[in-house]
Amino acid sequence: MVATTRAAFDRQLQTLQDDILVMGSMVEKAIERSIEALVRLDADLARQIIADDRAINDLRWRLEEDAVRLIATQQPMASDLRLIASVIPITTELERMGDHAEGIAKIVLMHGSQSPVKPLIDIPRMADLAQSMLRRSLDALIRRDADAARAIAREDDDVDNLYDQVYRELLTYMIEDPHTIQRATWLLWAAHNVERIADRATNICERVGYVVTGKMVEIDVSTY
Amino acid sequence: MVATTRAAFDRQLQTLQDDILVMGSMVEKAIERSIEALVRLDADLARQIIADDRAINDLRWRLEEDAVRLIATQQPMASDLRLIASVIPITTELERMGDHAEGIAKIVLMHGSQSPVKPLIDIPRMADLAQSMLRRSLDALIRRDADAARAIAREDDDVDNLYDQVYRELLTYMIEDPHTIQRATWLLWAAHNVERIADRATNICERVGYVVTGKMVEIDVSTY
Repeated sequence: MVATTRAAFDRQLQTLQDDILVMGSMVEKAIERSIEALVRLDADLARQIIADDRAINDLRWRLEEDAVRLIATQQPMASDLRLIASVIPITTELERMGDHAEGIAKIVLMHGSQSPVKPLIDIPRMADLAQSMLRRSLDALIRRDADAARAIAREDDDVDNLYDQVYRELLTYMIEDPHTIQRATWLLWAAHNVERIADRATNICERVGYVVTGKMVEIDVSTY
Repeated sequence: MVATTRAAFDRQLQTLQDDILVMGSMVEKAIERSIEALVRLDADLARQIIADDRAINDLRWRLEEDAVRLIATQQPMASDLRLIASVIPITTELERMGDHAEGIAKIVLMHGSQSPVKPLIDIPRMADLAQSMLRRSLDALIRRDADAARAIAREDDDVDNLYDQVYRELLTYMIEDPHTIQRATWLLWAAHNVERIADRATNICERVGYVVTGKMVEIDVSTY
């Protein structure tokens, strides 16, 4: 590459990275608000989250097209190429995390005028962990820090443990009072959505490893 | 492109398409066997499916690298570029379908020596539909047939309806006999995994539309 092309490339790469962070923070916000809506069973907020998901989807396609164009026109090498190519699966993960937040919002709407089975404590804790994993996984990507990514991926175990706890607790509710079964399965879906968000953050961490080293090392995430 | 490069490119593109079909049939087989294992509660088969998932993951990374290399070295244009770039998200979908089959296999193992809550009829039917959607969505991709893809995507509604039916039926079991609750939630996860496989086939159909037209039109899939 000649110097001016290199400068243009660097600028485009910077924009791409900035946009990933923007998309990440949109998704993080959607997750946070979905849990807020679930805790308060706030139907208006839930509808807002569902409407706002479109913007996340739109950004995803734009980012993917930007990445493909960069690869085709600039022929980047090595870790630059791997980073840009990884934008495609990473934005897919982010967009699906947004879908999980939307899924939680839909669960809020399913409740209608019914009260929740129980006050929510562990699901918001799971969501805090998942959001933190998401934010730091994207930081690790931009800094190309494979060690940090590996450490973040390990936190998925904490989310899984909380999920198992929520599952066992809801099972107890269902067994003790069959009237709670339907609403308990709704909370189970909500917890499942949060658990999947953490899995997807783990997938991003895997990607960071690939961007840095060129080797894809799969980090085992549970699949329910 | 000069003539010899074009011939080489066509060959590489053909290989890439063949490999996608190979990966698709590996995943289809995994789904089929996971349902077989669930119906018979066959722990040996379940363990085999879990072990075989590695080969699907390995093929995914290879295909992704092949696609990125093709874009970077051959600078394909228009629908060729879109097809090759789409290999990355499509193999992600396929790999995750394999994970869902693995998830069903793990549910088989959870049963241990317990019998299933009920004989399985609708879950295998869901799986048949999902497998057929998967196979035909990849055919539509290779043929670049956006109309076929759109028609296939609509079949996701049938899978969703069956899923709702399974959900309601299992809820009835749980309410009538609390002893069934844990095993019923397992079958609920199994059905959910199948439902997600159909969603992912729908995602592939969306991609086909993008490859052909250059426009991404999201087909709404349910998110539980």
